[in-house]
Amino acid sequence: MPASPIRKLVPYAEDAKKRGIAVIHLNIGQPDIKTPEIALDAVRNANIDVLAYSRTEGSEAYREKIAGYYAKHGINVNAQDIIVTTGGSEALSFTMGAILDNGDEIIIPEPFYANYNGFAQANGVKVVPIVSSIESNFALPPISAFEEKISERTKAILICNPGNPTGYLYTHEEILQLVALAKKYDLYLVADEVYREFAYDGKKHHSILREKGMEQHAIVVDSVSKRYSMCGARIGCVVSRNTDVMGAVLKFAQARLSPPTLAQIAGEAALDTPQSYFDEVIEEYVSRRNLLITELEKIEGVKIARPNGAFYCVAELPIKDADHFAQWLLEQFEINEATIMVAPAGGFYATPNLGKNQIRIAYVLEKPLLKKAVTILAKGLKQYISLGN
Amino acid sequence: MPASPIRKLVPYAEDAKKRGIAVIHLNIGQPDIKTPEIALDAVRNANIDVLAYSRTEGSEAYREKIAGYYAKHGINVNAQDIIVTTGGSEALSFTMGAILDNGDEIIIPEPFYANYNGFAQANGVKVVPIVSSIESNFALPPISAFEEKISERTKAILICNPGNPTGYLYTHEEILQLVALAKKYDLYLVADEVYREFAYDGKKHHSILREKGMEQHAIVVDSVSKRYSMCGARIGCVVSRNTDVMGAVLKFAQARLSPPTLAQIAGEAALDTPQSYFDEVIEEYVSRRNLLITELEKIEGVKIARPNGAFYCVAELPIKDADHFAQWLLEQFEINEATIMVAPAGGFYATPNLGKNQIRIAYVLEKPLLKKAVTILAKGLKQYISLGN
Repeated sequence: MPASPIRKLVPYAEDAKKRGIAVIHLNIGQPDIKTPEIALDAVRNANIDVLAYSRTEGSEAYREKIAGYYAKHGINVNAQDIIVTTGGSEALSFTMGAILDNGDEIIIPEPFYANYNGFAQANGVKVVPIVSSIESNFALPPISAFEEKISERTKAILICNPGNPTGYLYTHEEILQLVALAKKYDLYLVADEVYREFAYDGKKHHSILREKGMEQHAIVVDSVSKRYSMCGARIGCVVSRNTDVMGAVLKFAQARLSPPTLAQIAGEAALDTPQSYFDEVIEEYVSRRNLLITELEKIEGVKIARPNGAFYCVAELPIKDADHFAQWLLEQFEINEATIMVAPAGGFYATPNLGKNQIRIAYVLEKPLLKKAVTILAKGLKQYISLGN
Repeated sequence: MPASPIRKLVPYAEDAKKRGIAVIHLNIGQPDIKTPEIALDAVRNANIDVLAYSRTEGSEAYREKIAGYYAKHGINVNAQDIIVTTGGSEALSFTMGAILDNGDEIIIPEPFYANYNGFAQANGVKVVPIVSSIESNFALPPISAFEEKISERTKAILICNPGNPTGYLYTHEEILQLVALAKKYDLYLVADEVYREFAYDGKKHHSILREKGMEQHAIVVDSVSKRYSMCGARIGCVVSRNTDVMGAVLKFAQARLSPPTLAQIAGEAALDTPQSYFDEVIEEYVSRRNLLITELEKIEGVKIARPNGAFYCVAELPIKDADHFAQWLLEQFEINEATIMVAPAGGFYATPNLGKNQIRIAYVLEKPLLKKAVTILAKGLKQYISLGN
């Protein structure tokens, strides 16, 4: 598997830290938001004698409760439509293994979450990208672009909604177009909806599981990681009403025995997180996003896709090579012994040479630090360009 | 992936329970032994605000401490030779992905842990079995049998030591033979050593990591599951001094981001479990094994492989089809509203029709219950045979 462009930067970040430079991480989607106390308390107070395997598909109680969570979101599924996984990562990996054979193709609008490539490669699956553009905030490409790419080996379309790295939230109209496409060509429609709650500006998230006639087509990948700021739990799930798909996912799940038991306790309790928690978190993210956009717009030559969801923003910089710039920021630049680490966006594209002048910024930092980071970006960019780059 | 023969029995066990029958499970390796308090307390008392990702390869502190654990077992490895995984299952899966390409072959003495098949299949790898026999307690087959099966596609040999399902503990002489074979043919030697501590009757466990000149060949798969009765933690590791292998394992690990954080806290603390815990556990298992063997030997026509390690025992029954017998025990048989669930051993063989009259018994039950279970087995067997089976 290829090393991600972010990974390649890690040694430079470590070197910078060794030189006493504070590195502000704009590159990772690890929220700084506190995990709900109710989830942590459940683990602290769990009465465990033997830390035993859970059921392969996740404990019955937890799956029932997850079904209740979906019901609140207008999604009508039962516990047997849910298999608990070790994070959204495993949910994705099992889904690909279940629906795709060696050599099959999956269409994914790009830029997309870089690890999709890793899971596809591990499963011998070919990723067929369709480019979405920063000019349209990374909206869904026209359906004709999908139809051009559909071959006999095409089995599925994968979207991330709201998107990592784009922050784009698909409209209901866009979801309906994808639904019609999946039905027309008898394809699976896989939606990574781990950022479901993170929809801003009064816009609504539209789950593919709410659409009619999609029982055989719709597969949702989900996770507690971002929702409850519990990335370290490693708990997610696959949700589908297609019993063949779920049967195949279950076989992959059986081989690894069970998802982590302690984290399931946290995940189950987290479902009782009060709405006020999300209200506060979303208010915080919106205000960070607004600050980020405002500050980025002050920088000459920077183009921004305005995100309506998740906590990422892709920005296009007036440079040629964001990989080189990102490395330069860590190796050569500092302001008062501080610099930033950004994610070069090339790694989020499957088409070679796309996104080379783009970066992804994760706004999971408190506002003063975020503002400082953008200042470093602005000054760094100016100096970098003045050096003839 | 094929459904395991144990999985096929699950609905029959559930039906029996619905009829009010107590099902004694001899079929699963879920120990009833208590998890060390020190591990559970560490989780209860952990000071967590944000349940964040750990490092992909496991926290530095934990890996350093694991290296210390190995040093106590005469194994000289550093933290960078260790990648923490989500259970031994993931360690196996990543190892296969790292060292084997689609179509490559891995030689495994059979009977072997059935999920090896699942991981091999998921990685497009061909399992080449070499039969070991109950008459020799499932000792290592002659090296000539391995040499006959080595082809251009053979990349690795996989052993489980002590063995699941056999309970066989390889002698130092056997390990040295495998080491010489791996060197001679330039193969990886992968050892699943998750039962390392469970060596009985004064016999010693011999890790492949202790052998000289194996830096490029030896890969150990490990887990906290059985060692500390923490199956639900889902924490294991891959250990190898081969930096290319570890680099490839790391890429698989990066795609799934990190192993579970809460369970790593438990795993790290568990390393301080006092020796007295293991002394008691091993004394208990030995006494269970002795009871089991004594009681099984009283049953006419039953052949037993005497285990020196782990907590499994394979028995050959005077019947033709253990799958059918196991199902019959659940469907048709009871003594005072109790029956047993056994694991038919056919699922532990890759060669068709081998082990059809064998079962695996996991002695993870307290002695009175274990004795009762063998009584049910004896009487069930008698009645089953008297019915013309």
